[in-house]
Amino acid sequence: MKFSPLLSELIRTLKYLPGVGQKTAQRMAFQLLERNRDGGQELASALHNAMEHVQHCQQCRNFTESELCDICASPKRQQQGILCIVETPQDVMAIEQTAEFKGLYFVLMGHLSPIDGIGPADIGLDNLAELLDKHQIQEVILATNPTVEGEATAHYIAQMCRSRDIKASRIAHGVPVGGELEYLDGSTLMHAFSGRREL
Amino acid sequence: MKFSPLLSELIRTLKYLPGVGQKTAQRMAFQLLERNRDGGQELASALHNAMEHVQHCQQCRNFTESELCDICASPKRQQQGILCIVETPQDVMAIEQTAEFKGLYFVLMGHLSPIDGIGPADIGLDNLAELLDKHQIQEVILATNPTVEGEATAHYIAQMCRSRDIKASRIAHGVPVGGELEYLDGSTLMHAFSGRREL
Ligand SMILES: [Zn+2]
Ligand SMILES: [Zn+2]
Repeated sequence: MKFSPLLSELIRTLKYLPGVGQKTAQRMAFQLLERNRDGGQELASALHNAMEHVQHCQQCRNFTESELCDICASPKRQQQGILCIVETPQDVMAIEQTAEFKGLYFVLMGHLSPIDGIGPADIGLDNLAELLDKHQIQEVILATNPTVEGEATAHYIAQMCRSRDIKASRIAHGVPVGGELEYLDGSTLMHAFSGRREL
Repeated sequence: MKFSPLLSELIRTLKYLPGVGQKTAQRMAFQLLERNRDGGQELASALHNAMEHVQHCQQCRNFTESELCDICASPKRQQQGILCIVETPQDVMAIEQTAEFKGLYFVLMGHLSPIDGIGPADIGLDNLAELLDKHQIQEVILATNPTVEGEATAHYIAQMCRSRDIKASRIAHGVPVGGELEYLDGSTLMHAFSGRREL
């Protein structure tokens, strides 16, 4: 027995969502049908609208349906003269939640990865050059991930900054606050040691 | 910082899906936007169509967009004169995957639960009575879950069958094939002992 055509199609397409397999997709479909058809319709419209209208901010490459995202459009943010470079929109979200950083962002939407054919243009570095030249950026904070690719990307961009006489800094990596040494991976521990400061 | 309005709305409505919290919803939204907008649009249409058109089969209460589901509409299935009663459409799916059972189903879409105000009419027992009277059902197999409510529901329906001179049987509960005794819960073990058969 198969499900009815419309139900099969719903289950099939729910599996486009990351982490959703056959069983989970069935449970999702049945739950919406049994308990929340209005919610299912709201989700259908939200999906349609987002897929249709959400694009990349023309300055920072974060997701937005406007030409410029709210952060890029804010004069207060622009005046700081400081730019934080991250790999993903989720990183922007995480940093914004600390409410510590008040400058602009640039979202690479990835990192350099020659092995996968991902070069400077693919992560928007021509847009970044334009941004650096046009705005009065005094400091660039490199907040890419502490992976091989993230480090390589950070170094590449640091070079771009140096040739423009812009200060480039790298966020610190080490033991998370509240983290226990014994549960840390070796590479984080290495970072913690090599980044040690005198007290 | 908040996400743009369309992105916020997408993340909010993705949380209608069971098991999806804020972080997962963000990951789902970004993944579709970055890698699979066509898939997102397909999912939007599938959701819309299913929420709009999928209803309950007028005979067995399983989900379908037709008046009768494929199983109820099959003359071969009807001729068996055997009806299996389950709690959910997922149960039908699980039984169909074994390809052992060839009769009709009736889907309660729940179980009797006086404490939650769920009585016979809420689980379609008036429809079931009609089905039993109209079709030449010789045996009813009660495949509700081995929970207190599932057992009570099975007994209630067995009574309905008895008053119509229809044989009612309960599926066996016990140690799953390949299951190890030491990892079984006590209630399954109890079922395994009380359901023992002479060799
Ligand atoms: Zn922006
Ligand atoms: Zn049916």
